[in-house]
Amino acid sequence: MTNPTIEPPSVRPRTARELGIMQGFPPPPEKRPTLADWDLAPMNRWAFQHVRGLIPTVEVPAAAAPWELPAAHQDLSAIRFRDDQGRERTIGRWLADSYTDGFLAWHRGRVVAELYLNDMTPATLHLAQSVSKSVVGTTAGILVGQGLLDPDAPFVDYVPEMAASGYGDARLTHAFDMTSGVRFTEDYNAPDSDMTRIDVASGWRPAPDGAPRPTIRDVLLGLPKQREHGLVFDYRSIETDALAWAMERATGKPLAALVSELLWQPMGAEREACFTVDGAGTALADGGFNAGLRDFARLGRLLLEGGRRDGRQLVPADWIGQIRRGGDPAKFGAPYTEVCPRGAYSRQWWTNDRSRGDVMARGVFGQLIYVDPEGDFLAVKLSSWPDYLIPAFSRDSLAALAAIRQALG
Amino acid sequence: MTNPTIEPPSVRPRTARELGIMQGFPPPPEKRPTLADWDLAPMNRWAFQHVRGLIPTVEVPAAAAPWELPAAHQDLSAIRFRDDQGRERTIGRWLADSYTDGFLAWHRGRVVAELYLNDMTPATLHLAQSVSKSVVGTTAGILVGQGLLDPDAPFVDYVPEMAASGYGDARLTHAFDMTSGVRFTEDYNAPDSDMTRIDVASGWRPAPDGAPRPTIRDVLLGLPKQREHGLVFDYRSIETDALAWAMERATGKPLAALVSELLWQPMGAEREACFTVDGAGTALADGGFNAGLRDFARLGRLLLEGGRRDGRQLVPADWIGQIRRGGDPAKFGAPYTEVCPRGAYSRQWWTNDRSRGDVMARGVFGQLIYVDPEGDFLAVKLSSWPDYLIPAFSRDSLAALAAIRQALG
Repeated sequence: MTNPTIEPPSVRPRTARELGIMQGFPPPPEKRPTLADWDLAPMNRWAFQHVRGLIPTVEVPAAAAPWELPAAHQDLSAIRFRDDQGRERTIGRWLADSYTDGFLAWHRGRVVAELYLNDMTPATLHLAQSVSKSVVGTTAGILVGQGLLDPDAPFVDYVPEMAASGYGDARLTHAFDMTSGVRFTEDYNAPDSDMTRIDVASGWRPAPDGAPRPTIRDVLLGLPKQREHGLVFDYRSIETDALAWAMERATGKPLAALVSELLWQPMGAEREACFTVDGAGTALADGGFNAGLRDFARLGRLLLEGGRRDGRQLVPADWIGQIRRGGDPAKFGAPYTEVCPRGAYSRQWWTNDRSRGDVMARGVFGQLIYVDPEGDFLAVKLSSWPDYLIPAFSRDSLAALAAIRQALG
Repeated sequence: MTNPTIEPPSVRPRTARELGIMQGFPPPPEKRPTLADWDLAPMNRWAFQHVRGLIPTVEVPAAAAPWELPAAHQDLSAIRFRDDQGRERTIGRWLADSYTDGFLAWHRGRVVAELYLNDMTPATLHLAQSVSKSVVGTTAGILVGQGLLDPDAPFVDYVPEMAASGYGDARLTHAFDMTSGVRFTEDYNAPDSDMTRIDVASGWRPAPDGAPRPTIRDVLLGLPKQREHGLVFDYRSIETDALAWAMERATGKPLAALVSELLWQPMGAEREACFTVDGAGTALADGGFNAGLRDFARLGRLLLEGGRRDGRQLVPADWIGQIRRGGDPAKFGAPYTEVCPRGAYSRQWWTNDRSRGDVMARGVFGQLIYVDPEGDFLAVKLSSWPDYLIPAFSRDSLAALAAIRQALG
């Protein structure tokens, strides 16, 4: 019935301002995000750009001199792609309709598009959600290169307390690739899931009945082993928190300082970033990072350019190779193949198509850094989708980015 | 018994690190500040430099180009002064013993001393406590100069909701000078004081029994009038929050944006500052500001130089005059004369000696900006005293600064 050549009518979502969220002095009570609803629709339209106003945070200082991002803007809005429902759509409409807060595309050494919607600005720190994992994983890769972290070492070498937990006989490499056998129910909605327990521990949700909050690490230490390590890729946020703990113990420095000193400053970030912290001051490594659009693009550029900034190797080339080609497709099954049929997962990054070597940092509610060295192309999309996972939106993003890449030649 | 010429033995307080506060990954539970104890000794040794890690905050963006602070450091440590107990002490010992986190002295256009203790650094944002009031008041003075705020107007012109509160017939000028007749029990320790209610509302203390928190403005609207306005200076934090509300309504902008756009950026602040915010996103105007030592010095310099930066009038000269000479000593009585026997209070600043016109921004636990135009001198001291008010410490600070000023000539 649908004519595939006719673009569907726009469903441009309302902005936080249009929704009246946090407007007025003070805003009406029903328009104030609380810990019970801030990360859900519609409050996330405002909250993902204002996390520091909701949750305690620790800073990730920026560089003294930013890494220059030369620009040669092009109008990409009329580029067409076929969406998940088989309809032809323009990039302009896709960006407007898919709850975009910020979008940046980079091709052959130039920013070709940089767009802010929903009142986001270049100064805004946007919640990265699980893009945080790739930030932490890349920092860990630098520590591996420095010999301070050994992926093949057991966790208990760094964190002896883990001996009695599911991580008791796991090695760092399992967490890097999310193949440990530790139980962690990554269910965002179930009130009794391990994910919800981490949400409470990290200060992202109210504690039930005002009970004392455990810490992120209290929850981690209580997780059992449910199968042998290394058998299968199973996306579980806690693996990143386990890595962050090892990183802190290996160096004696908190995660935020490590990310700043090893990655954010050397990479030339232009804005201070931050992590949310729990009651013990522990950064939520798996999802609590917030940064500016252009700095996420710099991280993508670092991957694109093989871990080098202006000829200086910041991330070991071998580590970048492991990200791009190291994922084992045999361990990568449903439901992950729903969005990435030829994908894999390695070193806290997603591979989109292992034969191509294009990689992604992904976060719920539509956060994406897409890096395609073959096409000398990258894109960042920060969003405030109305739900955690919308596979059709994810597929649309990949189709749209492929169309942009193709149009740029 | 005491020989006044012998300096007393050092009582250098332990640093947060030496106390083990927030050391380790994770720190032991008893070494983690919580909302129940963070601003009290000993936790405040750590917490005043890490407020963003404990309470939600909103940023106050800095300037693109900082106001230069030329330096000509001198060793002030051997300068002597007579302390509150009649003992002769050195500046070096005074700084070490009085829970100093940061200290800066400025004389004749130069930084003559800049000192960081207790692991503070030039990048640290330190809690200003009630120095926040002077930041807010100075911003308000700029709005007055722009004609956007009228000190003689009634509050209800800006905030009609105040009609039924103690502010119903108060004018802004009363709050500027803290002479309104509104009841606000400024008792930091009593669990049922108005101050404690603001602490709970602003997210600084746990809500009793996990009850829902009111907002700062909910508490404000519930305050009754207890005497005629304008009669007497009575230091009550809520007056600044009342002013901030009027400022937001007058401009349609949140306080943090106003401080940034009107003061922090024009003044050339080098670091982003922040305010703590309540559940409605309202900044705690009376005490929730955090900034770097050098930026507090820039604010002092702005006062010192008559409201001008490099010849450009940022704060109206008339407003600066009102700060320096406008306070009415007849309204300024006990207990305030205990520290400032010739003092006054005007436009959210303390006058130390009205005949001299030296002024101060002061905050509990030892926060101080002292500005003495006559001596072309200013000093900033950021501290983490073991108690809210220690009059002997306050008097020591003024005696020490007078001795430094005198030694500098």
